[in-house]
Amino acid sequence: MSLKLPNGNMPAIGYGCWKLGKEKAAEVVERVLSLGYRHIDSACDYGNEVEVGDGIKQAINKGICKREDIFVTSKLWNTYHAPEHVLQACQKTLSDLKLDYLDMYLIHFPISLKFVPFEKRYPPEWFHEPEAEDKKMEFASVPVIDTWRAMEKLVEMGLVKNIGVSNWNCQGLRDLLAAAKIKPSCLQIELHPYLQQRKLVQYAQSQGLVVTGFSPMGNGVSYWREDFSCLKEETIQKIAAAKNVSPAQVILRWGVQRGWSVIPKSENFDRIAQNLDIFGFQLDSQEVGEIDKLERNLRFNDPGVFCPAAFNTECPIWE
Amino acid sequence: MSLKLPNGNMPAIGYGCWKLGKEKAAEVVERVLSLGYRHIDSACDYGNEVEVGDGIKQAINKGICKREDIFVTSKLWNTYHAPEHVLQACQKTLSDLKLDYLDMYLIHFPISLKFVPFEKRYPPEWFHEPEAEDKKMEFASVPVIDTWRAMEKLVEMGLVKNIGVSNWNCQGLRDLLAAAKIKPSCLQIELHPYLQQRKLVQYAQSQGLVVTGFSPMGNGVSYWREDFSCLKEETIQKIAAAKNVSPAQVILRWGVQRGWSVIPKSENFDRIAQNLDIFGFQLDSQEVGEIDKLERNLRFNDPGVFCPAAFNTECPIWE
Repeated sequence: MSLKLPNGNMPAIGYGCWKLGKEKAAEVVERVLSLGYRHIDSACDYGNEVEVGDGIKQAINKGICKREDIFVTSKLWNTYHAPEHVLQACQKTLSDLKLDYLDMYLIHFPISLKFVPFEKRYPPEWFHEPEAEDKKMEFASVPVIDTWRAMEKLVEMGLVKNIGVSNWNCQGLRDLLAAAKIKPSCLQIELHPYLQQRKLVQYAQSQGLVVTGFSPMGNGVSYWREDFSCLKEETIQKIAAAKNVSPAQVILRWGVQRGWSVIPKSENFDRIAQNLDIFGFQLDSQEVGEIDKLERNLRFNDPGVFCPAAFNTECPIWE
Repeated sequence: MSLKLPNGNMPAIGYGCWKLGKEKAAEVVERVLSLGYRHIDSACDYGNEVEVGDGIKQAINKGICKREDIFVTSKLWNTYHAPEHVLQACQKTLSDLKLDYLDMYLIHFPISLKFVPFEKRYPPEWFHEPEAEDKKMEFASVPVIDTWRAMEKLVEMGLVKNIGVSNWNCQGLRDLLAAAKIKPSCLQIELHPYLQQRKLVQYAQSQGLVVTGFSPMGNGVSYWREDFSCLKEETIQKIAAAKNVSPAQVILRWGVQRGWSVIPKSENFDRIAQNLDIFGFQLDSQEVGEIDKLERNLRFNDPGVFCPAAFNTECPIWE
């Protein structure tokens, strides 16, 4: 199952490389591809693109897949929004991944940070001066449309097949759609039963964007240090038991049926295989409706919360 | 008490003309000015600018105030976002108000609708074809920056002293700040104890914008047809009783102490006078904190809710 894009199709299940340890990344990515995944979600900021690229290369060399069989996404980091850095950032990502084109390139956040030279620190992360005691963020004043024009050039140059945005909201999306020559074709946002962002998903889809949900399991420690997991929800467990599948499979299937692609991450090969195996059952509308009711507007990844905490810098994007 | 702008000062209390009946508007506005208000919040979309202008003119003619003593805001309607219509819309508003300049001109919403000729229908409201059975909205694809460049020209032409935005969020504000030559100097949003939008207010103020809160009492019928009113909250009534002021005065005082200007509307002259009289007492930090606790993220004016209901058109802006 896949989602149609201007140039190609995005498989509904992808493997998400966020938080994938560098040391294991090559092995895991090769294995992921051998298990049948054909969609890899990567980013400069994940700090493991060299190793993810090694895994892809090994898989291609061993005949597990061909380049044209797989869909690879990467993301432009916040420090490279100035038009003159977009091409360089994309080339660095391509070189790390050992690819000559990306299937999707996303602006990672609607936040422009001051440029950090590639040779100085890569990936540059959120703060500007790693030696400073006070790890403050430093913003750059780059209009989105300037970054987008440079993204459009990457498409024209053949370096990327499709372009889109991540962590964008309706207001940002509406304006980008009005100004773009090549419309954004993908919106990647946090999506799970605890955070369904229904109006945003509906708006993006109505404008022809494919939606991808990251952190699909909705598990982790919240900013309030409370431990949450959709996997432990009775609703999910009940449906999983009735269908003889795992809670994770139920949640992923729910996302795909709601119409977005999901990019679960795991380093456990049984779970990695299981996460791909969600097409042998389906949820009926009542089950989907029950999962819908788990909404609690609980966001795990919010720069408006973690930037003040970690970098003593206000950086709201969702208000 | 007033808030400093690049060109002039905005009095912390203004009279809001939204929902002010046309037939009474001239009398009410003249009376408002005679009671001591020096800040009038108007908009094309309120449908009463001719009469509001009559009230201002009568007050000036009677020597109640001079033009330079009062601060008048108006707002560019959604159908006039195309650069070629911004000047016309501003001139129409100036002519209706019988003024030769505005103190503040705001883009009313981050929503561009298809142009409706001035002679065809004014104000054009939200839907495109009034005769159509199905009153659908029709969008126009105008990048915010194009509208903003035309707003900047109004400043250069001397038609408006300051420019800003209304119903904008952090993402939209960040991008506009990056692209603007003349920075937006005011953000007008719905603000009351039930909807405090703290991160947005803090972000806007940190970027040097003055914040104005509309619907300051937080009363009305919600989209779920439930009747809400901050005025009836025990916390508010208790503080009001202790200070021998009205609940409305407590709420307005709270907004001003939180650092924004407030633009209450009333057609009752006792209440109108009372709403201006909030500088003879103050709330201590504990009282402010108690009112802060009334937050319930309850928004009364949301195009993402009323547009689907009234115009069968999705129009989310806050997600």
